Amino acid sequence: MTVDEQLHDRQFVRTFFTTPTAVEGEDDSAKMLKSAIGLRGMQAPDVWVPDNEDATAPNMRDEGAGNIIDVIAEDGADFPGEIHPRVVWHRDSPGTRYQGFQHMLEIADPDNGAVEHIDGFVIPEVGDVDDWKKADEFFTIVENEHGLEEGSLAMSVIIESGSAELAMGKLRDEMGKPSNNLQRLFMLVDGEVDYTKDMRAITPTGELPPWPELRHNTSRAASAAGLIAVDGPFDDIRDVEGYRERMTDNQAKGQLGIWSLTPGQVVEANKSPLPPRDGYWLAEIDGREEELTEEDGVQVYDGDRLSLEETADGYRLRVGSDEQTLDEEGLKEELLDVFAYVPSLSDIVDSMAEFEAAKEAGKGAIAMTRAATVRIDGVEVEVSSDRMWDEATYQALQTPITLFQDVYENRPDQHEDLADLYGEDVVERAMNVG
Amino acid sequence: MTVDEQLHDRQFVRTFFTTPTAVEGEDDSAKMLKSAIGLRGMQAPDVWVPDNEDATAPNMRDEGAGNIIDVIAEDGADFPGEIHPRVVWHRDSPGTRYQGFQHMLEIADPDNGAVEHIDGFVIPEVGDVDDWKKADEFFTIVENEHGLEEGSLAMSVIIESGSAELAMGKLRDEMGKPSNNLQRLFMLVDGEVDYTKDMRAITPTGELPPWPELRHNTSRAASAAGLIAVDGPFDDIRDVEGYRERMTDNQAKGQLGIWSLTPGQVVEANKSPLPPRDGYWLAEIDGREEELTEEDGVQVYDGDRLSLEETADGYRLRVGSDEQTLDEEGLKEELLDVFAYVPSLSDIVDSMAEFEAAKEAGKGAIAMTRAATVRIDGVEVEVSSDRMWDEATYQALQTPITLFQDVYENRPDQHEDLADLYGEDVVERAMNVG
Amino acid sequence: MTVDEQLHDRQFVRTFFTTPTAVEGEDDSAKMLKSAIGLRGMQAPDVWVPDNEDATAPNMRDEGAGNIIDVIAEDGADFPGEIHPRVVWHRDSPGTRYQGFQHMLEIADPDNGAVEHIDGFVIPEVGDVDDWKKADEFFTIVENEHGLEEGSLAMSVIIESGSAELAMGKLRDEMGKPSNNLQRLFMLVDGEVDYTKDMRAITPTGELPPWPELRHNTSRAASAAGLIAVDGPFDDIRDVEGYRERMTDNQAKGQLGIWSLTPGQVVEANKSPLPPRDGYWLAEIDGREEELTEEDGVQVYDGDRLSLEETADGYRLRVGSDEQTLDEEGLKEELLDVFAYVPSLSDIVDSMAEFEAAKEAGKGAIAMTRAATVRIDGVEVEVSSDRMWDEATYQALQTPITLFQDVYENRPDQHEDLADLYGEDVVERAMNVG
Repeated sequence: MTVDEQLHDRQFVRTFFTTPTAVEGEDDSAKMLKSAIGLRGMQAPDVWVPDNEDATAPNMRDEGAGNIIDVIAEDGADFPGEIHPRVVWHRDSPGTRYQGFQHMLEIADPDNGAVEHIDGFVIPEVGDVDDWKKADEFFTIVENEHGLEEGSLAMSVIIESGSAELAMGKLRDEMGKPSNNLQRLFMLVDGEVDYTKDMRAITPTGELPPWPELRHNTSRAASAAGLIAVDGPFDDIRDVEGYRERMTDNQAKGQLGIWSLTPGQVVEANKSPLPPRDGYWLAEIDGREEELTEEDGVQVYDGDRLSLEETADGYRLRVGSDEQTLDEEGLKEELLDVFAYVPSLSDIVDSMAEFEAAKEAGKGAIAMTRAATVRIDGVEVEVSSDRMWDEATYQALQTPITLFQDVYENRPDQHEDLADLYGEDVVERAMNVG
Repeated sequence: MTVDEQLHDRQFVRTFFTTPTAVEGEDDSAKMLKSAIGLRGMQAPDVWVPDNEDATAPNMRDEGAGNIIDVIAEDGADFPGEIHPRVVWHRDSPGTRYQGFQHMLEIADPDNGAVEHIDGFVIPEVGDVDDWKKADEFFTIVENEHGLEEGSLAMSVIIESGSAELAMGKLRDEMGKPSNNLQRLFMLVDGEVDYTKDMRAITPTGELPPWPELRHNTSRAASAAGLIAVDGPFDDIRDVEGYRERMTDNQAKGQLGIWSLTPGQVVEANKSPLPPRDGYWLAEIDGREEELTEEDGVQVYDGDRLSLEETADGYRLRVGSDEQTLDEEGLKEELLDVFAYVPSLSDIVDSMAEFEAAKEAGKGAIAMTRAATVRIDGVEVEVSSDRMWDEATYQALQTPITLFQDVYENRPDQHEDLADLYGEDVVERAMNVG
Repeated sequence: MTVDEQLHDRQFVRTFFTTPTAVEGEDDSAKMLKSAIGLRGMQAPDVWVPDNEDATAPNMRDEGAGNIIDVIAEDGADFPGEIHPRVVWHRDSPGTRYQGFQHMLEIADPDNGAVEHIDGFVIPEVGDVDDWKKADEFFTIVENEHGLEEGSLAMSVIIESGSAELAMGKLRDEMGKPSNNLQRLFMLVDGEVDYTKDMRAITPTGELPPWPELRHNTSRAASAAGLIAVDGPFDDIRDVEGYRERMTDNQAKGQLGIWSLTPGQVVEANKSPLPPRDGYWLAEIDGREEELTEEDGVQVYDGDRLSLEETADGYRLRVGSDEQTLDEEGLKEELLDVFAYVPSLSDIVDSMAEFEAAKEAGKGAIAMTRAATVRIDGVEVEVSSDRMWDEATYQALQTPITLFQDVYENRPDQHEDLADLYGEDVVERAMNVG
């Protein structure tokens, strides 16, 4: 047995979408649940979380547990993603823990007809690993009482305390011990608002700190224990650009999933880790990226942060506010640092196929070259970059393809969207490579 | 028992001020101690550290121990902060450890009259957790020999080695074991100069590396074990702006305290985590912040990094060296990323009271809106941002208020300064919210 | 016994240079090994790694093991650095582990004549600490079978998984236990390509994430367990500037060694942690550094990112795109943040000698001042900075000297290069200080 491999059906989770379980003052307190369970395609998350904790008022949570049962029993069979309700829990409150246990016992009762469509539960506010074991023990009791297979209900946790962050470093040692069933663990989800409170952090404007170390440690724990790392909510819903930037930053840390608060965020987050339809060149200057536009095979830069002119003895290049005089060789080297190519899904499939062919022909490593003619202020320059691919490079760059394949296999409701996005042909090649 | 909560009187320590215990060549070697113990108000630190280690020459340390006793026995009763002398210690030197023990034994002798005003000792150069236990055992012996209550002397440590950084991850597991009294732990203080030596780091100019991971791990350990995180000395005493920036960076990591080398630094560090008297708007461009000035209710930007003009079909906006043509919607979105509001103490109290009222009225979440008219190059634009507040947001943003209340309760000598700073009315409301 | 001190001959490793052990299609498959073992001086690495893993095709590895033996038996006695072949290993594959064991057994057989010149082996793809122990046990069996002293073969590992990253935090606890010989550990080497795969990270352009936390944790583990931290390969061989920047970044983390893929990279990496021959001033603006040029004792700034003019009532200073009007005091403060001095080897030796003299004269701390006249746009300004040196500062700034001394003692083949670089006189003084 190795915990290096994911233990659950889904190898990847892009989206973790929460919905209040009972809203006061509506005709039907389950209205939002009923709306959410009807989502399909790119609007439907990989994991849907009926949220009987923070999103639901404390006095509505018993009613919320009932709504979860009713709505999932009725329509859960057709929901295209996994379903993991969140119940209440707190490392410092035995009363809250007992309430969460009671809700799990009720929701998971087969007589209520919902549990066959439920994949697990989400436990918030966990503390050290002994606290995680208390939750795990309740799962075991629930499974035993209801005649469910031991370990069949997945457990996911919200990391929102320093003690939980430290606990993640111990999972690999604790999972598999005879007295627990921690192999049921599935997702490690950061919860930055409560984490900020627990760490007692202050920012002048009240915005959340970026917490890069927390996100690294979550991703590392997921890697070491065969779990899935998910980032917390991005609460400025109008800031689509900011949400995208956060996802790009997360992906570079190996945290490929993120919380979504609206179907609009779900669409963004379902698409974000997938490679683009068309490859493109970009210029990166002073930490900002600008996409180049293609005109007749030439990549044209028409922004303001770069300027170039030919002089009597070479070139005058300005990058941001930094001007230099360069010869042709120097110019090309400098531009290598400015321009980069973002490969499309099709490009990645091509490169992988090329490496596979080379490997069969007995070569351990090949150079992959990417070249373009770039035009800046009317001056054209050839730019090219080489990268050596060996087995390790091949495997490291395979992640977006593996993710694509996992999505395709588990989300038939997104096949049409994927075909629209990439074309049938590219989809088929992507499913057969690797 | 939970270690999630602070175990000591002070829930927050803003300032950790060290003073040499014996200076050679002065008429009175205790002169600096006598001066420091007389500090009051904003010049007096939350924690005063008579420093019988690095700040005092090795051949003066026995005399220094005597000076600590004399000065504290005489004037300790009136000192407004806590008193934690630092003694010598080294993970690799039994001789140094024994000397530190002897000094503690002497200083804590009730017959010498100082210990009743002493809250604990600071132990530098600790190594792995077994080394921390050696120090803890000496505290226990000192307490036992002198008939002091077991655990009554707080122990704080300086983190200045990789092994001590790792030890912080184990505190929660080790505290509370029958064979130690590690619950006496109080402050985790980073010591970046020696840490840099221990990590063997090199920078071209010799300046200290920023060590963001160390500071994160210190703050996290404090959070997990109910302790207080304090950053190390900032040794360019003339660079007030740099000291402030370091504190802002620390606060975003949850490290709310910092070492102070002079009474001037103490004043800065006592004020830094407190919200400002007046809220203000700022522009953040290329990582630099500029405060806007208010004129007749309009927020005026008069710096050089932003320019705006109306064009026939919209707006031309320059942010740093980046120019864009935008319609009104696009302009507002772009400016949302540029401008942010820094709330005053009074603003925070208002927002908390507003949320408390909404909660009583049965609402779990409310939108807090902040709007302003901003003028750039004579062009006026409406800027507004929403933030959803729920229970978690409320608690996360409460930290500066909790800190304010802790300061107010524990530092009567600063009441006048606080009233001068904020007005009696705001102080009173801040003490009654939350 | 303390693991705070390095347990091996070399206290520092600047360069870790890998060479394929068997290349198909050449007249002599050992050609590259034969070429590499002939390297001397700055082109020869501190550690040479005949690479029987990723650099060598799987079907050539048995032949590669034979080549290692032949080439090292023949010429290993004269190689100026240490020799640590890399064998195959994988935490998830018992077959690969057994193959690695067989190759070690063969290569270390004294009858084959190579082991007397071999310092240890490098084990890639390790997992948790129990996996490290499996490798250590094979070393012990190899030593026992061949009558070598237990622990005499050093073990170095490549950190290329989240579980290995976590394992590094446990070394101090595990080394020295009766059932292992983990004291044989020598280098902790990051392997970012496979680590990126294991963490499942994605970047749009396919470039490697920077992984700052991994490098910090590697350096910290080295510090805590008396080992040596080495960064992974930098695969854009043409980008010399990028390689240098990576090394500067690593050095600020205490990771003083780096992988080299070519003799050209070895030269760069052997020189990088050594102080420069001549000190110089630099301007740091918007994260970019520019060296000032000296003209008749004046430091001249002639770049475009800074401009200065005298006005009727003071100065107008532009730093990047940020303009300010300042009085003389304000100007000097602002420029203090812009300019910094990079000391030469000779400067560092002078400062250390000055502090040593002060210490002998009974002073615990002295101020070191660095001053210059700087000319910007024809306007001259005096710039000076003070730094307090105490024992801790002295020791922290001693690292480049200790490294220099370690290099000088262990690498006689570089004496000539060092003398050419610094002059005999400076070299001699550097060997006698500290």
